[in-house]
Amino acid sequence: MSRLKEQEMDAYIASHQQEILEELTSFCAQPSISAQATGIQEMHTIVTAALERRGFSVETISTPTNSPVIIATAPGASRKSVLFYNHYDVQPPEPFEEWITPPFEPSIRDGRIYARGVMDDKGHIICRLAAVDALRAVYGELPCTVKFIIEGEEETNSPNLAGVIHDHTEQLKSDLCLWEFGDVDTSGVSMQYLGFRGILYVELSAQTAELDAHSGIWGTLLPNAAWRLTWALSLLKDQTGKVLIPGFYDQVVPPSQTDLELLAKLPMIPDSDVQQLGAQNFVQPFRNALDQYQAAVMSPSCTICGLNAGYQGDGPKTIIPARARAKLDFRLVPDQTPEEIAHKLRRHLDENGFSDIQMSILGSENPSRTPTDHPLVQMVVAAAADVYGQPQRVLPMSGGSGPAHLFTEMLQIPIVTVGVGHPDSRIHAPNENIHITDLINGIRHTARILARMQAD
Amino acid sequence: MSRLKEQEMDAYIASHQQEILEELTSFCAQPSISAQATGIQEMHTIVTAALERRGFSVETISTPTNSPVIIATAPGASRKSVLFYNHYDVQPPEPFEEWITPPFEPSIRDGRIYARGVMDDKGHIICRLAAVDALRAVYGELPCTVKFIIEGEEETNSPNLAGVIHDHTEQLKSDLCLWEFGDVDTSGVSMQYLGFRGILYVELSAQTAELDAHSGIWGTLLPNAAWRLTWALSLLKDQTGKVLIPGFYDQVVPPSQTDLELLAKLPMIPDSDVQQLGAQNFVQPFRNALDQYQAAVMSPSCTICGLNAGYQGDGPKTIIPARARAKLDFRLVPDQTPEEIAHKLRRHLDENGFSDIQMSILGSENPSRTPTDHPLVQMVVAAAADVYGQPQRVLPMSGGSGPAHLFTEMLQIPIVTVGVGHPDSRIHAPNENIHITDLINGIRHTARILARMQAD
Repeated sequence: MSRLKEQEMDAYIASHQQEILEELTSFCAQPSISAQATGIQEMHTIVTAALERRGFSVETISTPTNSPVIIATAPGASRKSVLFYNHYDVQPPEPFEEWITPPFEPSIRDGRIYARGVMDDKGHIICRLAAVDALRAVYGELPCTVKFIIEGEEETNSPNLAGVIHDHTEQLKSDLCLWEFGDVDTSGVSMQYLGFRGILYVELSAQTAELDAHSGIWGTLLPNAAWRLTWALSLLKDQTGKVLIPGFYDQVVPPSQTDLELLAKLPMIPDSDVQQLGAQNFVQPFRNALDQYQAAVMSPSCTICGLNAGYQGDGPKTIIPARARAKLDFRLVPDQTPEEIAHKLRRHLDENGFSDIQMSILGSENPSRTPTDHPLVQMVVAAAADVYGQPQRVLPMSGGSGPAHLFTEMLQIPIVTVGVGHPDSRIHAPNENIHITDLINGIRHTARILARMQAD
Repeated sequence: MSRLKEQEMDAYIASHQQEILEELTSFCAQPSISAQATGIQEMHTIVTAALERRGFSVETISTPTNSPVIIATAPGASRKSVLFYNHYDVQPPEPFEEWITPPFEPSIRDGRIYARGVMDDKGHIICRLAAVDALRAVYGELPCTVKFIIEGEEETNSPNLAGVIHDHTEQLKSDLCLWEFGDVDTSGVSMQYLGFRGILYVELSAQTAELDAHSGIWGTLLPNAAWRLTWALSLLKDQTGKVLIPGFYDQVVPPSQTDLELLAKLPMIPDSDVQQLGAQNFVQPFRNALDQYQAAVMSPSCTICGLNAGYQGDGPKTIIPARARAKLDFRLVPDQTPEEIAHKLRRHLDENGFSDIQMSILGSENPSRTPTDHPLVQMVVAAAADVYGQPQRVLPMSGGSGPAHLFTEMLQIPIVTVGVGHPDSRIHAPNENIHITDLINGIRHTARILARMQAD
């Protein structure tokens, strides 16, 4: 690898900041809200044109949901290849009144660009495209094959992505996948997340009658859906946070020595982070970062996300609720699977006399991991140190979930996170934004990764 | 007493059915929801006008809650007096979508009148007024002094009734009190309830943060209000229905021999009663009526009336709820008191590590009883046999609650139940209704009781 060429790329990127921001602005000005089926076709056209302008051969795979998936390829000098996974849809912009400038009128203030989707995920598409431009300008060609898979319904849980990957396995196979996002922490240190927790999202519901009944007349005679649900929920997790479903932890792979070493190197999550949410304390006192991160990302969780039964207005209403409902998510770690956990949950309810509790699965993703000692992961981490001027912080897992397992399982490739976000990017919220500095650094990092793919 | 005059009253009532229904309809068309502070003043005006039209001297006692209490008196021939206790407020009508016709647009179908409040309690106010009209038409005067106390916040647990009774003890003292309701069973047999369970209505709430938080990032780090509440609730009652609060049953007076004999004479509550509510079975199999009624009316209960936390819309939303809330009622039997039970509940939560759970008392009533061998109780039971053509069934207690203890304790008068309800009246639920036949019989029974007060 040539440090000189990489510095030439940095100079090229810096001198083309204006064009990069203009292309990003044109992307963000087009609404593309998958949940509301708004602007999807138009955005697909814009992205396709941006790829074709750069000589990519572009294939559009239509879906029953009318959110086409784009697969694009451009050849490079080495036999190596990199796959970019991104999405061109965005979250709904509501509530509009909380935006300082309108969500689809990108605005630059104090070194940040504000727009719906500027971080999630259009800034990342532009980051990848600008890196391609810089490589070609400096090297005269791409150092490795570059592939894109860009879907238009990530924000509605990627219902067609698995099928598309399954049908295009050979075409998509690559040496390395850059995930749809990456970020720095509050102090500007670049972060690397090498895994995602899986998720099982269920709705549990009890129905004991058709009608709510008078609690005075029927209180001791009729079954009560809210009590049934409460008793069932109390069988799922104890006050220490331990999940009580038999076999829940059977498939959990304990953290490796390397995992523990990586976690121990992280700074502690400060109390101020929980206080910003209005909480007084963490759920339990943590002695150090290792404890915190073992709980936060290396362990599975069980969260009640919502409860609903009977009367919820002001004052008293004396009824026995006929129906009660809870929404729960289980975050899973390797090698737990949503199917396995759903099965164990159902059996646990049945064995405790709660076969009347209905269970609907509202979402599921497998967990996924990329090995920390993979040579390409080490290369990405080293490149980050060069771009950001200090060592990248590596987490063996992140707490969130996503379709990463489709890539690690079906394509068998390592996934790294590289990108333009920061902790106050406000994704899925009003005033979504990125720093221009983070955008430029994300492009420099991406370009270095592609450049270094030619080396071995 | 004169059987002939009583038959004349029957004829008068039958021939005035249309006017009676019109007045009932006008009452029910006016929403008067105390829990939502809706239409209370308007309903107060309607009721006052109805009393003044009939020559009652009406006093309005205002309350800090803006639900005025009406005390009305009309003199009669004998020195005896009867007090009617009623209320002009109704339960909230929600859920609207389950009403076949709108709750405040009274509708007659198949011999029933449907409207929110038609049974509870506007049909009963009309029943008392129509009896007064019939007595005057036939006797030319009232046979005894007739008093009304009609409040506008019974459905929010009568927070001001005690004070009003305390301040008007001499004015309200009477020989007999007709309670706000009465009913027949599924086979049309008239029922007599000689006591009421007490009630403690509480809201338990947990707050663990100001903002809902992302369950992927924070699921294992932040406390979860919905889990705190679920665990706290699971400490209150087990699956057999046993309340787990230490000392909860300490003050319960066991049923007397007379109580048990009365209960054993009752027919079993049929499975069809629970099936009408859309429930499959009773909460447990009962061997006989004695078992059923010991559970239903002679034992205390603990009912979750509502649950609320986090996301309740369609589909998944992955959050940790910052707030969670449950509404509960405890039905109490002599000699339990709401103060005692509230104290024991609070202590139980505290002793189990749930001092963070906030407890608001939204209502409380003491239990109360009237002796079965009181001569006026015997007179009412005999009058029912004449009206309904078969012996009245006497229960030593009813499952419901009400401020009856204020009358039995402060005014020291016996209370009987006389009225227009039936088992499918759906009070507190959508499609509340009464049979026109039961309305007419309730009026006939009320008129006979007043007529027979002149006799001794």
